[in-house]
Amino acid sequence: MLGRMQDWPLTVDRILDHAKTWHPRGEVVTRSIEGPIVRTTYADIHERAKRLSNALKALGVRKGDRVATLAWNTARHVEAWYGIMGIGAVCHTLNPRLFPEQLCYIIGHAEDKVLFTDLTFLPLVKAYRPKMTSVEHVVVMTDRETMKSVDFPGALCFEDLVEQHSPEVVWGGFSEETPCGLCYTSGTTGNPKGVLYSHRSNFLHTLISQSNDVMGLSSRDTVLAVVPMFHANAWGLAFSGPAVGARLIMPGAKLDGASVYELLESERVNFSAAVPTVWQGLLEHVRSVKGQFSTLKKVVIGGAAAPEALVRAFRDDYGVEVIHAWGMTEMSPMGTLATHTAETAKLSEEAQFALGLKQGRPPLLVEMKLVDDDGARLPHDGATYGRLLVKGPFIVDTYFKGDGGEVLDDEGFFDTGDVATIDEYGFMQITDRAKDVIKSGGEWISSIEIENLAVGHPKAALCAVIGAPHPKWSERPVLLVKLKEGLQATADEFIAFLEGKVAKWWMPDDVVFVDDIPLGPTGKIDKKLIRERMTGYELPTGKSVERV
Amino acid sequence: MLGRMQDWPLTVDRILDHAKTWHPRGEVVTRSIEGPIVRTTYADIHERAKRLSNALKALGVRKGDRVATLAWNTARHVEAWYGIMGIGAVCHTLNPRLFPEQLCYIIGHAEDKVLFTDLTFLPLVKAYRPKMTSVEHVVVMTDRETMKSVDFPGALCFEDLVEQHSPEVVWGGFSEETPCGLCYTSGTTGNPKGVLYSHRSNFLHTLISQSNDVMGLSSRDTVLAVVPMFHANAWGLAFSGPAVGARLIMPGAKLDGASVYELLESERVNFSAAVPTVWQGLLEHVRSVKGQFSTLKKVVIGGAAAPEALVRAFRDDYGVEVIHAWGMTEMSPMGTLATHTAETAKLSEEAQFALGLKQGRPPLLVEMKLVDDDGARLPHDGATYGRLLVKGPFIVDTYFKGDGGEVLDDEGFFDTGDVATIDEYGFMQITDRAKDVIKSGGEWISSIEIENLAVGHPKAALCAVIGAPHPKWSERPVLLVKLKEGLQATADEFIAFLEGKVAKWWMPDDVVFVDDIPLGPTGKIDKKLIRERMTGYELPTGKSVERV
Repeated sequence: MLGRMQDWPLTVDRILDHAKTWHPRGEVVTRSIEGPIVRTTYADIHERAKRLSNALKALGVRKGDRVATLAWNTARHVEAWYGIMGIGAVCHTLNPRLFPEQLCYIIGHAEDKVLFTDLTFLPLVKAYRPKMTSVEHVVVMTDRETMKSVDFPGALCFEDLVEQHSPEVVWGGFSEETPCGLCYTSGTTGNPKGVLYSHRSNFLHTLISQSNDVMGLSSRDTVLAVVPMFHANAWGLAFSGPAVGARLIMPGAKLDGASVYELLESERVNFSAAVPTVWQGLLEHVRSVKGQFSTLKKVVIGGAAAPEALVRAFRDDYGVEVIHAWGMTEMSPMGTLATHTAETAKLSEEAQFALGLKQGRPPLLVEMKLVDDDGARLPHDGATYGRLLVKGPFIVDTYFKGDGGEVLDDEGFFDTGDVATIDEYGFMQITDRAKDVIKSGGEWISSIEIENLAVGHPKAALCAVIGAPHPKWSERPVLLVKLKEGLQATADEFIAFLEGKVAKWWMPDDVVFVDDIPLGPTGKIDKKLIRERMTGYELPTGKSVERV
Repeated sequence: MLGRMQDWPLTVDRILDHAKTWHPRGEVVTRSIEGPIVRTTYADIHERAKRLSNALKALGVRKGDRVATLAWNTARHVEAWYGIMGIGAVCHTLNPRLFPEQLCYIIGHAEDKVLFTDLTFLPLVKAYRPKMTSVEHVVVMTDRETMKSVDFPGALCFEDLVEQHSPEVVWGGFSEETPCGLCYTSGTTGNPKGVLYSHRSNFLHTLISQSNDVMGLSSRDTVLAVVPMFHANAWGLAFSGPAVGARLIMPGAKLDGASVYELLESERVNFSAAVPTVWQGLLEHVRSVKGQFSTLKKVVIGGAAAPEALVRAFRDDYGVEVIHAWGMTEMSPMGTLATHTAETAKLSEEAQFALGLKQGRPPLLVEMKLVDDDGARLPHDGATYGRLLVKGPFIVDTYFKGDGGEVLDDEGFFDTGDVATIDEYGFMQITDRAKDVIKSGGEWISSIEIENLAVGHPKAALCAVIGAPHPKWSERPVLLVKLKEGLQATADEFIAFLEGKVAKWWMPDDVVFVDDIPLGPTGKIDKKLIRERMTGYELPTGKSVERV
């Protein structure tokens, strides 16, 4: 016996249908790649996306085919997104920050048939076009006037496609398990692996995003979607915005502090989401022009741990609430948010602030567990470190084409590769990547925790901590410091700075000053490269220890 | 090709699992049927519900079996609810306001194997026990001490069952299409029909309820669930509360103004949901004791149209926001809510207030259309009346056991039986029941609109409008008035009161004063009974018209 409720598959085209029907004049504002601010509505986006669907069908795109986008956040990108997904094709968002060779590998691996590109990336696409053998058509996301000056034989113009095709097309009508999105993780080992989202997974992610403990948007919000659509689906904003009819501001290519600030103010934005580096650039700019935020009330910070000083500045200097969040491409991406519970809201302001610096707690639909190396569950006591595993309907089951093999444990949990604690209030804190954690004398030392403290030194621009081989302790921490330009420092200054802030046995055995701390394509410290560069390094403390 | 995301069926047991894991100390407070206030937590409820699951299994309940509850909102009812649903059985909530014969019909039709009952309904259950032939066991929802004085041979004690069974039981693990809830509509024609909810439909209803444009709860809320679990699933609160870990206050049997007010204040409630009559009783009491609301911020009013005076009083006298909502048992039940959009939030305060009196707009997952008698779509202009049809994943497909036959149109929409308008902002307004609408000279007159105006007359206690046969116009409206106790009035007073408020051709042709306006089991005016009582009535205006 089954329930007697309607069969209504969760396909994401229904999200834009809803926006068109109930929020037809809901505005989407873009800082276009061509330059001017462009205003459109959900009704227009819906019609143009449908025209694009017909264009794609005319180009031979069928259900299940992959269509790539190499594009910033713009209304055209949203149109391509829904135009692709509506007919059951797969929107493969490419991260332009990857190396060109990686991009070509990914395009080939995904067998992308059509590639949409912004003007920004034309030189790259032209140069590597011969290597993109699966790609049958390149579509330049621009208007017909600009297209005249584009020197790319055979490339199609986005606005031509929109103009030439009818908006009469059927969206949906297929299983909600149909894939609709593809995003490759910039793995630090091996080739990037693809996460193939389904309509169902993206739709459920959209629904839980509506919760006050997640994004909590309403149609009364104006949202600046700084986090790119190629960075884990813009954390779902291209779905959750239209799902409630929120006003959506798309910043295009300009993510520097001045440009972001201008949009926040001119478009009266009250909500935004981005990685810490964008917010740091923004605050630097706002300080330099002695500005204030007229309308901004809430920002979500994720993608990397939010530095305490950044959170304090938002709160104390500008009256903006910060929600710290954590997720992964493999999680669609939202995993946890540091929103307060009934219990934590009763704590002292500083205790609440400290909890807000943790990665937070999962909403319904995200299960989490901490386990030791043998897979046994660990307590939620805020002190015990363990591997963090996750489970839920928008979490990866297997990578695209089975790359990486089985990635779930016996209970169906996915290993995030992070090491974390979970406290009595359910707040999770990432303490390290499992592969970066330093195993010293059988205990774990968090490289990230030491980095975060060390970077608070006034002379530090960037800090990284890695484990160096040690004959007695197996590994011991080494602190690498890139100083701010023109400054000088000694190792002792940094050791003294850390004293009292970390346990004695966590103290780095050495401080190495470097010109450069390499960052990966998503702005995270590239420890793999650092370890390569440090090959052959020997700890001063190790030399004096008798080898066993 | 399918997406590569995890298979995680949307079964409602996961909602209570989430509450137990992430909000173990989240409180559920009950005004018990025995009298005292009882405090428990989500962790306790989870454990006790699991024990009940084992008890049900021991009583022979299997997946798909129906288990009835005849119970107020209490923690025990929540435990029974999850204990039943967790093992794939169906929780059939019985509305005690139905006539005993209807209850027995429903229990037999549903083939309920076990019946949970509150002490309140023991006399009823005892009296009609012989007619409940499908019921193998009656469970009295009380403690062991109270049970000693219960004179019901063979009846089981709830706390005995909890104590005697282990909490070790597997929940879920079945398809999300598995039924989990059953609720009969109090149809005004024919026998009541059952709506068989699935785990999926209830889960999706829970997810959309998290939206700020619907319930928008967080774990920081304290929710008084006045609307009963037997009244369209307490509008989902027994799911959406634990889904976010909100503090849940269960009022038990006492829904009078004084009792509700006491709980609102003593438990520091900030959110509640109930039908207009409860709110009217509450405000009368608060006025009489010259009280205020210390913590209440928001109330959802649904189940019947909220009178303007009620909404104004909440807003102006007590600073409480009112969200007007509309739904149906067949819709799980949420259909629309009158929350403001970016556009309507810019209107004048009074224009916003007027929109807030409409039933509102649908969230994502609810599709709506207005059609004429031929099924053609009608415009959203705020003036055109049409039949209201709805579609979505928590809307009925067919009634239980196929009663009523096919109930969807060619596009898969369910006919609500309501007549409505939808305005340019997407705000829907119910203007009548399709069967109550008065068809005069080929045009439609809303009986409800005239009733709502007429009841604003200071002498009116209740008003009803029905169509009476008319030889020329087919039907003409008649206003029935029940005066407030001890007052007298003339027909002319009411006609004069309506003049200028409704179109001339909408003016009732007659005013009839009555001792009683009958209400149905859910508090709505029983027009079927009124029409029966008015059989043989002839319009004074009809008599003078020459018959054709």
